[in-house]
Amino acid sequence: MKITADEIQVSQVKIQDAFWSEIQGKVTDIVIPFQERVLKDQVPGVEKSHAIENFRIAAGLKEGEFYGMVFQDSDVAKWLEGAAYALSVKPDAALEERADEIIEIIEKAQQPDGYLDTYFIVKEPEHRWQNLHECHELYCAGHMMEAAAAYVEATGKDRLLRVTERLADHIISRFGPEEGKEHGFPGHQEVEVGLMKLYHVTGKEKYKDMARYFLEERGKNPDYFYQEKVKRGWQHWGQYSLDKPDVAYNQAHQTIYEQKEAVGHAVRALYMYTAMADLAGTDGDRRLYQACRTLWDNIVNCKLYITGGIGGNPEGESFSNNYELPNDMAYAETCASIAMVFFAHRMLETEADGVYADIMEKELYNSTISGMQLDGKRYFYVNPLESEPGVSGKLFGYGHSLPQRPGWYACACCPPNLVRLVASLGKYCWSESDTTVYSHLMIGQRAELDQADITLETAYPWEGSAVYRVTPKREERFTLAIHIPYYVDFWQEEAVLTINGEAVDPGRLLKKGYVYLERQWKAGDVVELRFPMEVRKVYANQHVRENAGCVALLRGPVVYCFEGADNQGLLQSLRIPREMKAWAHLCEDGILKGNVLIDVEGYRMTGGGELYSEKPPVKEKALLRAIPYYAWANRGENQMRVWLLEEG
Amino acid sequence: MKITADEIQVSQVKIQDAFWSEIQGKVTDIVIPFQERVLKDQVPGVEKSHAIENFRIAAGLKEGEFYGMVFQDSDVAKWLEGAAYALSVKPDAALEERADEIIEIIEKAQQPDGYLDTYFIVKEPEHRWQNLHECHELYCAGHMMEAAAAYVEATGKDRLLRVTERLADHIISRFGPEEGKEHGFPGHQEVEVGLMKLYHVTGKEKYKDMARYFLEERGKNPDYFYQEKVKRGWQHWGQYSLDKPDVAYNQAHQTIYEQKEAVGHAVRALYMYTAMADLAGTDGDRRLYQACRTLWDNIVNCKLYITGGIGGNPEGESFSNNYELPNDMAYAETCASIAMVFFAHRMLETEADGVYADIMEKELYNSTISGMQLDGKRYFYVNPLESEPGVSGKLFGYGHSLPQRPGWYACACCPPNLVRLVASLGKYCWSESDTTVYSHLMIGQRAELDQADITLETAYPWEGSAVYRVTPKREERFTLAIHIPYYVDFWQEEAVLTINGEAVDPGRLLKKGYVYLERQWKAGDVVELRFPMEVRKVYANQHVRENAGCVALLRGPVVYCFEGADNQGLLQSLRIPREMKAWAHLCEDGILKGNVLIDVEGYRMTGGGELYSEKPPVKEKALLRAIPYYAWANRGENQMRVWLLEEG
Repeated sequence: MKITADEIQVSQVKIQDAFWSEIQGKVTDIVIPFQERVLKDQVPGVEKSHAIENFRIAAGLKEGEFYGMVFQDSDVAKWLEGAAYALSVKPDAALEERADEIIEIIEKAQQPDGYLDTYFIVKEPEHRWQNLHECHELYCAGHMMEAAAAYVEATGKDRLLRVTERLADHIISRFGPEEGKEHGFPGHQEVEVGLMKLYHVTGKEKYKDMARYFLEERGKNPDYFYQEKVKRGWQHWGQYSLDKPDVAYNQAHQTIYEQKEAVGHAVRALYMYTAMADLAGTDGDRRLYQACRTLWDNIVNCKLYITGGIGGNPEGESFSNNYELPNDMAYAETCASIAMVFFAHRMLETEADGVYADIMEKELYNSTISGMQLDGKRYFYVNPLESEPGVSGKLFGYGHSLPQRPGWYACACCPPNLVRLVASLGKYCWSESDTTVYSHLMIGQRAELDQADITLETAYPWEGSAVYRVTPKREERFTLAIHIPYYVDFWQEEAVLTINGEAVDPGRLLKKGYVYLERQWKAGDVVELRFPMEVRKVYANQHVRENAGCVALLRGPVVYCFEGADNQGLLQSLRIPREMKAWAHLCEDGILKGNVLIDVEGYRMTGGGELYSEKPPVKEKALLRAIPYYAWANRGENQMRVWLLEEG
Repeated sequence: MKITADEIQVSQVKIQDAFWSEIQGKVTDIVIPFQERVLKDQVPGVEKSHAIENFRIAAGLKEGEFYGMVFQDSDVAKWLEGAAYALSVKPDAALEERADEIIEIIEKAQQPDGYLDTYFIVKEPEHRWQNLHECHELYCAGHMMEAAAAYVEATGKDRLLRVTERLADHIISRFGPEEGKEHGFPGHQEVEVGLMKLYHVTGKEKYKDMARYFLEERGKNPDYFYQEKVKRGWQHWGQYSLDKPDVAYNQAHQTIYEQKEAVGHAVRALYMYTAMADLAGTDGDRRLYQACRTLWDNIVNCKLYITGGIGGNPEGESFSNNYELPNDMAYAETCASIAMVFFAHRMLETEADGVYADIMEKELYNSTISGMQLDGKRYFYVNPLESEPGVSGKLFGYGHSLPQRPGWYACACCPPNLVRLVASLGKYCWSESDTTVYSHLMIGQRAELDQADITLETAYPWEGSAVYRVTPKREERFTLAIHIPYYVDFWQEEAVLTINGEAVDPGRLLKKGYVYLERQWKAGDVVELRFPMEVRKVYANQHVRENAGCVALLRGPVVYCFEGADNQGLLQSLRIPREMKAWAHLCEDGILKGNVLIDVEGYRMTGGGELYSEKPPVKEKALLRAIPYYAWANRGENQMRVWLLEEG
């Protein structure tokens, strides 16, 4: 079932893309150095991190106390992972040297038995592994494993890999199905992802087995966290109580095979699904793949914002009820959308179904990068679909939904997560099996794959065109399978696919969102894909209360929104006509330069000053302007809406 | 400026009305006895009250500890006030005897210096009057004064009145502008209302002066509560901190003359406005009246739900921003709507402007009585305009917004407040000046006024008809001024006003919502008012985000809502046509028997199962049914909406 034996490595792909190169550049040139200085407590005015300092203290290199969240170590791991990808994208000897120094400190902090978590090493050595529910030891371990895998791939240096192997071995010695071992599993999933990456890099089955153990042990005993609490007889945070925790929050209420609905903390859920999908593909485990697909379908059919946002409920940063998708109160954490990319990517490596690539694209062009200000300097954790000055970030129910991106947070999860996603973007572009090269994303690049070198030129997401130039590496025939976005309709005359200038009939070759082009490829072969980029009006399911009567505008993969700045305020009084005339045009100056904007011939409803009146509002023609959603809140605080009412 | 010298007394009016008699009956026969048993801790399964017991302990009649809220005493006061009105409505010797017994206990609990508050008498005698900000001593005193005024009116017995006079004198000895007195004011306004009532009953200027002092001292020093905290050096609840409290919550941020916007805790605000309006009218104080009018206008033009709900923000049960009127997250406390009746009533006694009577009517027929289940046994504190099973009362942001009326609360403010309103309904029907009798409400009754006995027969609010039969008591000419609801249009042929069968031209006689009929009234004179009762479609101001594109249905003063029970669910998919056909019809069976329901030829939008689709939803004809808002949530948990989308 798995379509690719090995993951694509970041270094195989050189992104050269009008849209993404700039974003990658911000990440490597602005965010990674900034983040490093934050971790080293060198940025005045930013909340103290102390994350590297914690490692120094644990390593005995410094005197001092632990400071920060119990999962502060993961900030260092995520930074290292991002820096590793950045080194793959753009070699930087000085950065590599600084990373090596940090790895050396980490190695020194590791305990003789392999244990590694600075909170417990420094602060509560007697309480190790007693609170899997809340204490994130396995979570931090997982992130360190991901960093190690990325770092060895990028640099060939295996020092961190050896640290995490010792850590993984320590974990294996302590947890597992065998008698005498603790039958536990983490309160925040992530170690499963890390163990799978350790397996992919080392080929050692024990790490994959341990990932499977943690996944399959989960939910077998839904009272595990409660029993753990009773057993330890003390409490980390808050008052000691013997209340049973709500373990649906941790996806520990049922086994992974019993879970049919995406519930609880969205990032926890998605990291788990990602590991499940990876394991399913790696082992060719159809039952596990089906469990993933059931959860995938629930998200995509009932719990996904049009922007790709997931986990709409601020309470517990969690999935809400099916179809409960409030716009102004949305949580839709940047990290959750990033994790949805991970999940989609792993599903895609298991089965080449365009729905995974479509959602991956939706996340990439919308609710992931909306997390970063256009200048790369400030970040949203929460990505609402409606924002109202004086309400958002202020009133009851809206405290989390900031109208402007703030700076660095004490809980610095989203920016480093965005860094590692964007820096490793190349990974998500391709999969390869023995006979087929799959192109998942239309992102301009030079790719060095096993079967061919392929360059891809494209003006995506602004134009529907992509040119693939293929240079095969071997004599054998192979298939180039290109993902065709779900909204492309080859029945339209304007949508064409050519090989060396000759049209091919894609209908015959299209299967589950991919056109399969099998041939004896020759150097210089050119595949060209062209399709019209129309403004699409999208309606939500009738079960979605918040979007009743409304439409959202999309063009290609890009979701649009309306801001007060362009529309003289009162966005709720604007109407999109049923028969809509809309124009897309390139913005040529200002902060939005380079983005395609949409102008719509619409209406504005106007009325009197009374609060309530029997007089119907009057409909006036108005030119409305929409901008890409990801670029909202870059022009000062103002109203924003993705969904506008439609006027019949 | 004041249009009436003395308030109407409850005993002057005998309600005989198809709509209200039943509700009054529930209050006197079900709620008052139930509440008495709660106060006496005789109802199993209901949260312990201990309120009477606290008085017994304070009186030295029992050993024990204080239990309950710091304002637990007010529950007894509110019950006594309600019971007094009930005795006016329907004499009941046994009830009166039990009330007398309670009053005797209260008298015994009073301290030699006049102090009366069981929390401090029993629990913290050394801390009296040190925390006006949070401790409700003046609040409880105010309610006791209201009870005393009602009780002496109902029974002629002045024992409680004498208790509260001693209490008021104690307060006057302690607070005031004079040197050596504390220049304080209450954290929860109410004593101002009580002092005004004490003045009206006793005629003693000192009580009115003290009311004015508390009103005018307020906000002069916005740091008063902060300084009080610093001075006492201890904290009642929570951690001791030297943060300055947000005194806009208590309307203590500015003087009453500087306040232009209704802000903070809605009930606190409205009790204050009520006392301000009473004082303005009583003293003929135009400046103060204008201050009231400014606040009134802000509420009515920017902060009032169509149902009459006010204080939409659950955080602090407070007023939100102008036009910020969320439906499903609304707080709209029953008590706040009741207090809005008090405010409207006092404004009406000061100036006969129909806008006050219209809003009083809106409150009475909608968001006050929506607080009580149709059987009188369960109560809403929160009155949302949209309710969603699985969301309301459950999810983040909706915890307060219950989908079903629960039973008695620990903080038992709303049910007793509703009792005292409904039991004293007669008070709100009339005002009298030397020359004019004002009829504010069309409620069937026999009224014994100074200038005439008047019977009123009406099928209001279901039909637009009222017959006044006048029996003058004196020879002099006088004016009968009848409030004409704002939606009645005498330009329509069907709207007529007759005296003894002869049509009069109301246009000439209509001033600010009242027709003024001046004549030499003779026994048997009949004034008849008839107007059509049409279903009215109402739009909200374009600034109200939540109601964009929506309409609400009203008929007479009654606001309607749609429930899932009548409309096969998915209320958000229903549409009211721009050109609406609607029929009103009397419900003849079931729990809604006697209510007029509305059927509308509308639409239901249907679509596919996809979460998002480019396919527009399909419009299907559907017969929609609306029921009076106040009667919602009497048929099990189901969806409810006041505002439905309009389809052009």
